Amino acid sequence: MPDTPIDVLTIGNAIVDVIAKTDDAFLVAHGLHKGAMQLIDEERAEDLYAAMGPSTVVGGGSAANTAVGAAMLGARAAFIGKVRDDELGRLYAHDLRAVGLSYTVPPALHGPATARSFILVTPDGERTMNTYLGACQNLTAEDIDPHQVRHARIVYLEGYLWDPPEAKKAFRKAVAIAHEAGNAVALTLSDPFCVDRYRDEFLGLMRDGSLDILFANIHELKSLYQTADEATALAALREEAVLGVVTRSEAGALVVTRDGTRAVPAFPVERVVDTTGAGDLFAAGFLAGLAKGLDHAECARLGGLAAAEVIQHIGARPQTDLRDLARQHKLLP
Amino acid sequence: MPDTPIDVLTIGNAIVDVIAKTDDAFLVAHGLHKGAMQLIDEERAEDLYAAMGPSTVVGGGSAANTAVGAAMLGARAAFIGKVRDDELGRLYAHDLRAVGLSYTVPPALHGPATARSFILVTPDGERTMNTYLGACQNLTAEDIDPHQVRHARIVYLEGYLWDPPEAKKAFRKAVAIAHEAGNAVALTLSDPFCVDRYRDEFLGLMRDGSLDILFANIHELKSLYQTADEATALAALREEAVLGVVTRSEAGALVVTRDGTRAVPAFPVERVVDTTGAGDLFAAGFLAGLAKGLDHAECARLGGLAAAEVIQHIGARPQTDLRDLARQHKLLP
Repeated sequence: MPDTPIDVLTIGNAIVDVIAKTDDAFLVAHGLHKGAMQLIDEERAEDLYAAMGPSTVVGGGSAANTAVGAAMLGARAAFIGKVRDDELGRLYAHDLRAVGLSYTVPPALHGPATARSFILVTPDGERTMNTYLGACQNLTAEDIDPHQVRHARIVYLEGYLWDPPEAKKAFRKAVAIAHEAGNAVALTLSDPFCVDRYRDEFLGLMRDGSLDILFANIHELKSLYQTADEATALAALREEAVLGVVTRSEAGALVVTRDGTRAVPAFPVERVVDTTGAGDLFAAGFLAGLAKGLDHAECARLGGLAAAEVIQHIGARPQTDLRDLARQHKLLP
Repeated sequence: MPDTPIDVLTIGNAIVDVIAKTDDAFLVAHGLHKGAMQLIDEERAEDLYAAMGPSTVVGGGSAANTAVGAAMLGARAAFIGKVRDDELGRLYAHDLRAVGLSYTVPPALHGPATARSFILVTPDGERTMNTYLGACQNLTAEDIDPHQVRHARIVYLEGYLWDPPEAKKAFRKAVAIAHEAGNAVALTLSDPFCVDRYRDEFLGLMRDGSLDILFANIHELKSLYQTADEATALAALREEAVLGVVTRSEAGALVVTRDGTRAVPAFPVERVVDTTGAGDLFAAGFLAGLAKGLDHAECARLGGLAAAEVIQHIGARPQTDLRDLARQHKLLP
């Protein structure tokens, strides 16, 4: 294998998104928590799917969306995540490779089907996710290629990876190899409820030196520090030994270090169609910016631009030439 | 089976659309005829897919799109077409039933996979389709439920149905049953090259009394009468014993009978994103209008409205509540 450096290697659950428009009444009738990600079993998945409207099927998975976005912005990107060798798994792998990112994890030949998330989008553009983890449960430490991790300047992990039982071993293995090679490790907190499930472990990772960069939206950050107050959560983050990147939807992002907090405005959006992937694409832009040597505020602007693109259409993968868009906004040369 | 009347029963190839954005250079490099539908074999499908960008997967198939649109406009609609019992086939059936239309054809348990069309959308919004017919080749006359056809006020068939070898028998069976029951039969010409393949047969169907309504865009109509001149083609259509409905993109539609031709303007469109399904949805609106007892000009307006919706996003199935949209425009009560 050639020693080509990778700018961003992301590791996460490989999930096909099955997206349908719905209304708030449907969420209430099915006991769904608007805006959150809920894990569901196969039976629940079938029931929910049967009740859902017609769907658009596109590649998804938080960390994979981030890798796709980074690749589209010109970063050398790779993804680690597990699909099954079924039709949806093949579609999934195709869509990753089609944007030029490296995806070499072999599909599972047995066991549950490729994961899918049934995503319900309400008229306000908010998405509510119901994820059947399927083949993601077969991601193990063996799927982490040490060679690939060593050559990745930044390894980016999603908090959701804590859900499938074996994946956290893969996660820890990747962190160890990355740091041994002197590379940076980033984590996204993924979802307030995910933070609730693994709060102590996430705080532990940050405090035992496993993490160099933390991505979170303000809801996740408040969940992390168990506070309803934004200022309290941000003050707590400032004490951690990480670069903190906090998104606040249309209120823009904050870049938080021990030295201070820098606010970066969001890009204006004509109409929010589907917020799925907003955080993932923000991270994509930020990481691609780091790879290009931009300063943190510029990275956050690039993140904001990528997020603004993705929420103006259905699906969490960009439908515009992001690199071109970034050039139009003079954020990339 | 209860004798519930059906407003519109459509019969066609059951095809999953795999849609990717591309540029004109890609079409040229792969020898694709822009704007047309080309049939491809499995090997070609694999090559083309490998070269394509990331895709959006949605239900498609011309006649199925029409049934979906009609159902969304409040018509009682049904569809006949063949999928395989695979993942894409299940997605396909789900999306039909999710809009409330009747789809009772059993999936093929053997043979080729569910059909897919690799649709390449250029920046001008034009779509170029490459269709692997797969399981559609297993649609036979046995799949036509005489009971269902007898209860359908209009049976709508697509010209593409002439491509799979057995389907034309299904087609002819449906026509015979429909006319025996005193119901109307409509045909869409589908594509100028499809017309080229089956010109004599399509003209024969129109002239032997098999058809009551003919849908065509102006390119298909010119192909039918082998003329480059619009007026010549329209004059020829006026001589046929059918209700002719001719679409001309942003120039609007023409309703053509022996008594005269009525022009109906198109709806203005902000930005054409993907023209896939424009004709299908025009037919959906027209047929739903007939079912509601509207006059031909009103039917064409409703068709134009549905077409305008579908070309403003990726995919050939409406993403808006069409009925609500029609009410806003005072086209439906």
